[in-house]
Amino acid sequence: MPGVKKVGQRTIQFANPPVVMATASIVGPKEGEGPLADCFDKIVQDTYYGEKTWEKAETKMLAEAVEMVIKKAGLQTGDIDYLFAGDLLNQTISANYAARQLAIPFFGLYGACSTMYEGTILASILVDGGFAEKVVAATSSHHNTAERQYRYPTELGSQRPMTAQWTVTGAGAMLIAKEGSGPRITHATVGKVVDQGIKDPNDMGAAMAPAAADTIITHLQDTGRKPEDYDLIVTGDLATVGKALVEKLTQQQNIDLSKNYTDCGILIYDPSQDVHAGGSGCACSAVVTCSYLLEEMIAGKYKRILGVGTGALMSPCSCQQGDSIPGIGHAVVFEMS
Amino acid sequence: MPGVKKVGQRTIQFANPPVVMATASIVGPKEGEGPLADCFDKIVQDTYYGEKTWEKAETKMLAEAVEMVIKKAGLQTGDIDYLFAGDLLNQTISANYAARQLAIPFFGLYGACSTMYEGTILASILVDGGFAEKVVAATSSHHNTAERQYRYPTELGSQRPMTAQWTVTGAGAMLIAKEGSGPRITHATVGKVVDQGIKDPNDMGAAMAPAAADTIITHLQDTGRKPEDYDLIVTGDLATVGKALVEKLTQQQNIDLSKNYTDCGILIYDPSQDVHAGGSGCACSAVVTCSYLLEEMIAGKYKRILGVGTGALMSPCSCQQGDSIPGIGHAVVFEMS
Repeated sequence: MPGVKKVGQRTIQFANPPVVMATASIVGPKEGEGPLADCFDKIVQDTYYGEKTWEKAETKMLAEAVEMVIKKAGLQTGDIDYLFAGDLLNQTISANYAARQLAIPFFGLYGACSTMYEGTILASILVDGGFAEKVVAATSSHHNTAERQYRYPTELGSQRPMTAQWTVTGAGAMLIAKEGSGPRITHATVGKVVDQGIKDPNDMGAAMAPAAADTIITHLQDTGRKPEDYDLIVTGDLATVGKALVEKLTQQQNIDLSKNYTDCGILIYDPSQDVHAGGSGCACSAVVTCSYLLEEMIAGKYKRILGVGTGALMSPCSCQQGDSIPGIGHAVVFEMS
Repeated sequence: MPGVKKVGQRTIQFANPPVVMATASIVGPKEGEGPLADCFDKIVQDTYYGEKTWEKAETKMLAEAVEMVIKKAGLQTGDIDYLFAGDLLNQTISANYAARQLAIPFFGLYGACSTMYEGTILASILVDGGFAEKVVAATSSHHNTAERQYRYPTELGSQRPMTAQWTVTGAGAMLIAKEGSGPRITHATVGKVVDQGIKDPNDMGAAMAPAAADTIITHLQDTGRKPEDYDLIVTGDLATVGKALVEKLTQQQNIDLSKNYTDCGILIYDPSQDVHAGGSGCACSAVVTCSYLLEEMIAGKYKRILGVGTGALMSPCSCQQGDSIPGIGHAVVFEMS
């Protein structure tokens, strides 16, 4: 296909790689006690963040992360052409209410916990394609809103199995621009929905792992690259259970991820924080990418990262109707020259 | 901004307008008794469509509409680069499960009833920007799944106020390509989230009208066009209540829509069908655009249509928390030369 910025099956190669002009991250108290505490822009000490409900607190964090990323880039809200955002809540209310407040032309997404990477891909497409100069991709999640909606209200104190993950409370935002200095987005591999029949809403890592593996394998095939071509390969929120499965699934295809692969859900908490398998939620990959990962890249630690935003497309309604939980993984290559 | 395909505040002008290569529409029994019955590709006689639940029936319709549009274009599923889809159900399960079945690289959207137009804009961006050759945008809704989730289960037989709209049961799909014959997509105006404080979940038309008016006014300003530059201006699902409000809101800006403006929610049902204000739902604008509107355009009746997909970003959770219902409107210009 001449003139088409596509390599292989489903990888986009950007002609003029867009720049990550700025990032912003806001997290809750638990994340602020974890190993990445020093990397976040803001740590909120109260899960209600001064609001009456956790849902309103989540909206506030998301809107603030977007405002913060714009300010960090030295810009005004009116300078942003488009906003891509979504979240885990029904009808993506955090994103919708944040977009209402910000009044930036808005594309609403639902990619579950893969949303940050889905938005990053689409924002990069708009910038590289000449449709926009500055686009923000953002997302949020909140432990208490997610537990209430997907499993049990936290007030109930239900016991969580060891495969369960802890939804990250926080919000991340990335400003993607045509010009500027910073890490560049060179490639993206768009996810397919993959389902290996997992039905346990307390085992999201296993539900997402097949989709993550599928995207990593396809990305390497499409680009003709090997894992060692990356300084780091990092999935969004598979945590310990899902990460082990990705290593196994890729190994079956003779791909060795043992040397340079980790997961944002493992990076964000310390095992002593009693989060069981690790972190999850839209904010997991968002706040880790929009702080630690890209900061270390700017500091010179990493030259090329393959990030894979992972999402469990889980629904309490379809679980009750006996259906299984499909996953999706969207990959983005960040590169610092 | 040199080289940027943007006119005015938030309108995209496509450099090489993508072609609507084919459309497909499937509807339920009630829509099959309405005035557009002859335009739809398929009328399903049973709201369960042979499935055990209405949710599964909706998924089946959506997947079938995508398969149908690919077949109508003489293509195979593997020829489609990307799929954009979303729906009204929590965690957009119709779209996710349809994407699982179709195995097309997938971008999940949440734009409430504006989803068909949001997807059409993004699909056109990918094609015009050289990222893809063939992209499908699709969506679905179902009266019984939507009522259960947003208001009351239909089995309860709750009385509906006269401002209430009837969620369209059905699915629509559009195949957007770089080359081919058919209507072309020349412009898109991306919506902003607008909220005038409506809190009644049985008055979606009023909740969406301010956003629709805002997008129409901005589109005309951005392009320097007048309503009479269009053979038809059509909103997605404002029905009688919302349409009257759009006419009033635009009139306040000295824009006269009285001559060539209608709404898909008015077109799809006959007043005798007891739908109160008219049709709504993701499928409302989808099946009317993907049948009647573009068929009449191909038949020569319309040369230039401004379609505005409208969405009420309503959430039962945020309604219970006392928040109001914001709306969004995404506009697309279809043109037949």
